[in-house]
Amino acid sequence: MKYCSQCGHELTVQIPPGDHLPRRVCGHCGTIHYQNPKLVVGCVSEWDGKILLCRRAIEPRKGYWTLPAGFMENGETTEQAAMREAAEEALAEVEIIAPFALVSVPHISQVHLMFRGRLKDGRYGTGAESLDSVLTEEQAIPWAEIAFPSVHYTLECFLEDRRRRHFGFHSTVWRKPSAA
Amino acid sequence: MKYCSQCGHELTVQIPPGDHLPRRVCGHCGTIHYQNPKLVVGCVSEWDGKILLCRRAIEPRKGYWTLPAGFMENGETTEQAAMREAAEEALAEVEIIAPFALVSVPHISQVHLMFRGRLKDGRYGTGAESLDSVLTEEQAIPWAEIAFPSVHYTLECFLEDRRRRHFGFHSTVWRKPSAA
Repeated sequence: MKYCSQCGHELTVQIPPGDHLPRRVCGHCGTIHYQNPKLVVGCVSEWDGKILLCRRAIEPRKGYWTLPAGFMENGETTEQAAMREAAEEALAEVEIIAPFALVSVPHISQVHLMFRGRLKDGRYGTGAESLDSVLTEEQAIPWAEIAFPSVHYTLECFLEDRRRRHFGFHSTVWRKPSAA
Repeated sequence: MKYCSQCGHELTVQIPPGDHLPRRVCGHCGTIHYQNPKLVVGCVSEWDGKILLCRRAIEPRKGYWTLPAGFMENGETTEQAAMREAAEEALAEVEIIAPFALVSVPHISQVHLMFRGRLKDGRYGTGAESLDSVLTEEQAIPWAEIAFPSVHYTLECFLEDRRRRHFGFHSTVWRKPSAA
């Protein structure tokens, strides 16, 4: 971010009065340009005990398997975002049951929020951002080819809770692996 | 948003190829400027059965009472954001216990996430963005002067769960009241 999105002038980096962090500030119109984490919202959805997974057609992690999830849009609720992503990536109509998992990803300034859900009628397909979609048995989950740690975490918590017949709400932090 | 923050040229509004929503796009450098909801993170914190509240010194809702909460910063975890806000607004060191409430606020493209916590040593004060801070008994909560519906909801859920001696995770949507 180099230019003011309001007036087009060059920005400088400074700590605004009363603030404690450096921000990009426009010396011309005075706008302070805050940058904040993005929410990625998705859903672990069941049908007949099987779980809906999609194989990514786009980077990052093209070819790897994920739960339908993506950036939340302005004007949506978190539940609407989760349902939209299932519709886009897996052509599936999903009913949201409850929030299920929260994963902070501070090194890329993201927060991943996953719901539990169920397919409305068992129908699904392959959306434009997917190479493939499946309803998979627990035994057939491709653990070595899961796209993201937050998806791995959500699936693990989900299967554990399902065995216990008690679903909670889970949270963790996904930290960047340190270069050894 | 009128100008490209990467190159300073004027933006146009169009639906990029493969997308389904109008975005601000730079015809000069090709950057697509996505706008996404912001996360507001806070905490309902106890000390000796009392709850920490702050009276807002800034708009919106100046003079009204809130749980310490604010916009999450890049590079933070959600827990760090909640602890930082308690430190800034109430000069309190807070220990995070668990995620507690999630409120979508689609008409202003925000998501409010509240944790449960406890003060580390019972000390608190009045931060720069507050007019006052209190540790309040349940009976003394100023219900008519609560700043935001998400704070009201979080306090209600918290007191209800505390009575039951079982804390869950709660979620709701705060919709703009329709003009009657």
